[in-house]
Amino acid sequence: MQERSAADGVGATMPLAKVEKTKGLTMKYLHTMVRVTDIEASLKFYRDGLGLDVIRRMDHEAGRYSLVFLGAPGNEAGPYQPQVELTYNWPDAEGKSETYGGGRNFGHLAYAVPDIYAACQRLIDHGFPVLRPPRDGRMAFVRSPDQISVELLQDGAALAPAEPWSSMPNVGSW
Amino acid sequence: MQERSAADGVGATMPLAKVEKTKGLTMKYLHTMVRVTDIEASLKFYRDGLGLDVIRRMDHEAGRYSLVFLGAPGNEAGPYQPQVELTYNWPDAEGKSETYGGGRNFGHLAYAVPDIYAACQRLIDHGFPVLRPPRDGRMAFVRSPDQISVELLQDGAALAPAEPWSSMPNVGSW
Repeated sequence: MQERSAADGVGATMPLAKVEKTKGLTMKYLHTMVRVTDIEASLKFYRDGLGLDVIRRMDHEAGRYSLVFLGAPGNEAGPYQPQVELTYNWPDAEGKSETYGGGRNFGHLAYAVPDIYAACQRLIDHGFPVLRPPRDGRMAFVRSPDQISVELLQDGAALAPAEPWSSMPNVGSW
Repeated sequence: MQERSAADGVGATMPLAKVEKTKGLTMKYLHTMVRVTDIEASLKFYRDGLGLDVIRRMDHEAGRYSLVFLGAPGNEAGPYQPQVELTYNWPDAEGKSETYGGGRNFGHLAYAVPDIYAACQRLIDHGFPVLRPPRDGRMAFVRSPDQISVELLQDGAALAPAEPWSSMPNVGSW
C-alpha cells in the first residue's frame, strides 16, 4: 500500500518546480524513497552524519504524513539533483506507528565522498557506527536508524591506509 | 551480509572513470543498489520496459556475481549520472539461488517521464502491469520482477485524463 499516493495524489512526491525547470524529452531519475519512523533521528543520520542537504520538507496534515527530500551537494549542478525522499507516516488515532523492516531486494544507497575518513568520523561523532570501516581507504558501509544500508566510496583514488581505520573490525551486517 | 564487498573489495561498485572525472570537494549520490534473481528478466524491466540505458556491466567470476548499472538518459548531462545498480549473485555450488523479499523501510525508485501514458504502455507491452495506472495523467507505479516499486511521474504539468488509463483500476499494492 502506497499510503501517500491515495491520500494526496497530485504532486506530493517531488519538488515540482525543479522538475519543470528541466522538463525534457527523456526520462530522469528523481529519487529513492525510504520510510522512516523518526524524522529527527533520520535527519541526524542523513543530514548531520552523512552531510546531505535538506532540499524540501512537506507536512501533510490531511494525509498524516511528512516528506523530507535530501540531496548531495555535489549533484547540484546537474539537470536534476538526485534525492533521497524520507517518508514519515504519522501515528494513527491510537498513537501507533509501524516499524519498518528491511528486505533483501533492496541493497543500499551509495555516495562518493571527498575524504572517506572524514565522512566516517562525522558519522561516528553523530552516534552512527561504521559497520564496514574503510580499511582500504576507499569503501565503507553504515546503516540509517531504519536500517537502510548506505555505501560510501572515496571519490577518485583510494586514500593511503591509516589508523584507526586500518585495524577497525567489521560490525554486524550491512 | 554484503557479498560482493567481501568477495571483491576495491572498486567493484561504481564506474570509476566517471567518478574520477568529476572528483570534487563535495559528496555525490552515485546509485541505488537492488538485488536481482534474473538479469535478463531485470533488463527486460529496467531497460526495455522503463527505458533506462545500460551504462556498464561487470561479471565477476571469482566473486560469482554480476553487476549492471543503468541510468536515465535525462541525467546524462550532470556532474554524475545517477544510476541503479543491479546485483546478481550467481547460484551456489548446488545450483541454489536466494530469492529476495521486500521490506517496508525501502519505498521506491522514482523517475520523471516525458509522456506518462507512453511510458506505461511500453511497460505493459513488455509484460509488466501498471499497478497504479495514471488516471490523473501524472503518477503511476509498477514493480520490477523482484518487487522493487518504481514510481513514474509526468515531467511538468499533468497530461489531460485519457482512456484507457482514466478508468483503469489499481492492482495489488505498490
